[in-house]
Amino acid sequence: MFTRDVLADPVALTRALVDIESVSGNEAEIADRVEEALAATDLKVERFGHTIVARTELDRPQRVVLAGHLDTVPLHDNFPSRTEDGLMWGCGTADMKAGTAIALHLAVTEAAPRHDVTYVFYECEEVDSARNGLRILADRNPHLLTDASFAVLLEPTHGLIEGGCQGTQRVLVRTSGKRAHSARSWLGENAIHKAAPILERLRRYRERIVTIDGCEFHEGLNAVRITGGVAGNVIPDECVVEVNFRFAPDRDEAAAADHVREVFEGFEVEFVDSAPGALPGLDAPAARELLAATGRPPRAKLGWTDVARFAVLGIPGLNYGPGDPNLAHKQDEHVEIDKIVEGAEVMRRWLRADA
Amino acid sequence: MFTRDVLADPVALTRALVDIESVSGNEAEIADRVEEALAATDLKVERFGHTIVARTELDRPQRVVLAGHLDTVPLHDNFPSRTEDGLMWGCGTADMKAGTAIALHLAVTEAAPRHDVTYVFYECEEVDSARNGLRILADRNPHLLTDASFAVLLEPTHGLIEGGCQGTQRVLVRTSGKRAHSARSWLGENAIHKAAPILERLRRYRERIVTIDGCEFHEGLNAVRITGGVAGNVIPDECVVEVNFRFAPDRDEAAAADHVREVFEGFEVEFVDSAPGALPGLDAPAARELLAATGRPPRAKLGWTDVARFAVLGIPGLNYGPGDPNLAHKQDEHVEIDKIVEGAEVMRRWLRADA
Repeated sequence: MFTRDVLADPVALTRALVDIESVSGNEAEIADRVEEALAATDLKVERFGHTIVARTELDRPQRVVLAGHLDTVPLHDNFPSRTEDGLMWGCGTADMKAGTAIALHLAVTEAAPRHDVTYVFYECEEVDSARNGLRILADRNPHLLTDASFAVLLEPTHGLIEGGCQGTQRVLVRTSGKRAHSARSWLGENAIHKAAPILERLRRYRERIVTIDGCEFHEGLNAVRITGGVAGNVIPDECVVEVNFRFAPDRDEAAAADHVREVFEGFEVEFVDSAPGALPGLDAPAARELLAATGRPPRAKLGWTDVARFAVLGIPGLNYGPGDPNLAHKQDEHVEIDKIVEGAEVMRRWLRADA
Repeated sequence: MFTRDVLADPVALTRALVDIESVSGNEAEIADRVEEALAATDLKVERFGHTIVARTELDRPQRVVLAGHLDTVPLHDNFPSRTEDGLMWGCGTADMKAGTAIALHLAVTEAAPRHDVTYVFYECEEVDSARNGLRILADRNPHLLTDASFAVLLEPTHGLIEGGCQGTQRVLVRTSGKRAHSARSWLGENAIHKAAPILERLRRYRERIVTIDGCEFHEGLNAVRITGGVAGNVIPDECVVEVNFRFAPDRDEAAAADHVREVFEGFEVEFVDSAPGALPGLDAPAARELLAATGRPPRAKLGWTDVARFAVLGIPGLNYGPGDPNLAHKQDEHVEIDKIVEGAEVMRRWLRADA
């Protein structure tokens, strides 16, 4: 149970969220704590799995979404948190419990925002998009989102407004061969050796960098996993390279898939996961208001984020959070305490502007 | 329990052994059945884990070893056995339950061989040599082997005497990199991409073929496993290629290791398993007697076999078994029924020659 003091302080609340281990698939405890905190407010709270939606019902002319995920990538000797010299270190500090903490802090403490607000705290953002809590919510209960006219996703942006996002695809590139005893290897065909050109093409690949609406999008094509082999004395008959393509939002999913097929021409390619990017779209009125509240120029979002899911629902959205996106998924992940305080203040100023 | 009829028929006994699943690590049941059968004879039986030693105590001037392993490689839609048109199909038929069946058949039915005989039925030949039952026996109870002057290993040779064996080494070749979010891959270093030259060197490697004592030894250098990757959206910081080197017996282990290090120069190489080869050594008197009993010329053993463990103990040895070594570890593994019958007859003729 988070105390009232913790909920009133976005820094203490970030620390409390980081110190609950919530690697994707293990969000039960953190979701229980968030649900408890929201249940004590006037918000209308609903839970779906480990995804929680909490809505103000104030009949404001406009509704906005504030969203953050509850999960993290696997731990890497960086749990629990540790605070030193104005920095909080630990898995999930930047991506994105500092942002999620700001949303939860506002949900609990800001009773009369200028817009109606739909707060979304969701599970499984760091894994296969089929399990993504926001995706499942958008598929099964879209009415909880589609009455909003604007969305802010509190993914790490280091205190800047980041427009749009990259698209992402995951594909399996396979080779096949023929098993044989490794003592008589010439009777088989080694599928792992056949994967040499796949890795070589990846090694030589040069990423495209595209500028859209003044935002610079950097692409990337990377092997994220490789597996092959049967036993220590058997010539392997299969090798699978899992590749992640991060593409600029000027390519749609079909064009991205064509590009991947072209790179791996001559190999079997299976698409296992695909999500579109989102164009920057910084001309929405609420985006301009939030930009004004930050007082800083925007930049491109280098990363896939769930703003693309809002884009698909017709809701413009942007990324804004205290963490440094370059520290996400790294062992030395951390967040600046000042950025958490500043982010909470900017969001509160924005939500209270006309109040 | 094997019936007396099954034990009296090496073909039926082969089938019975094949139909007990005994993938390495799972030999308890097959070892229990073998131990039961031996316990009903006059042999002196001892068991160590799932390795069984049964010795005649006839005070003959000479002692020989007959040895066979009880385990198989993993099943591959080839269990249980199936017999058709003179062929018995299934995992372990050739490598090496047909040979093991001949040894067990002789142990139970040949009460007065011309030499004292030490029968060895052992576990875990198809995996890391640290688990090999014969190796463990040779380490902990060498006196059960060293009073023999000659050894026959019933590994598949297709009814020919095969001299010596290849050596084998397994090494891990590693690359390391730096984790980062795959959406900002240029902040990391992809360890899987760095493995491209390892696979390329393996793909281009041309094996040496050496003739020793008229026996032609064919070498091989192969990736048998590859692993790398952390999560679908993380640049991997490690990739490990497991490589198996099968070398001709004119290289000792140190020379083989030097060659492997040279092939993978510039990469981190860790040796995890190494076993020497054995030179053909077909001039031992018992080898000449067995050669005469087969009536066929010898050839080189293309494969590592435990004759090398006997060579290390100073015991000359050779390979002789009914299976076709080219079928070992393949899905369509099978053995010719005629070869089982012939092998059992040759071995009996040899053991009875002076009786």
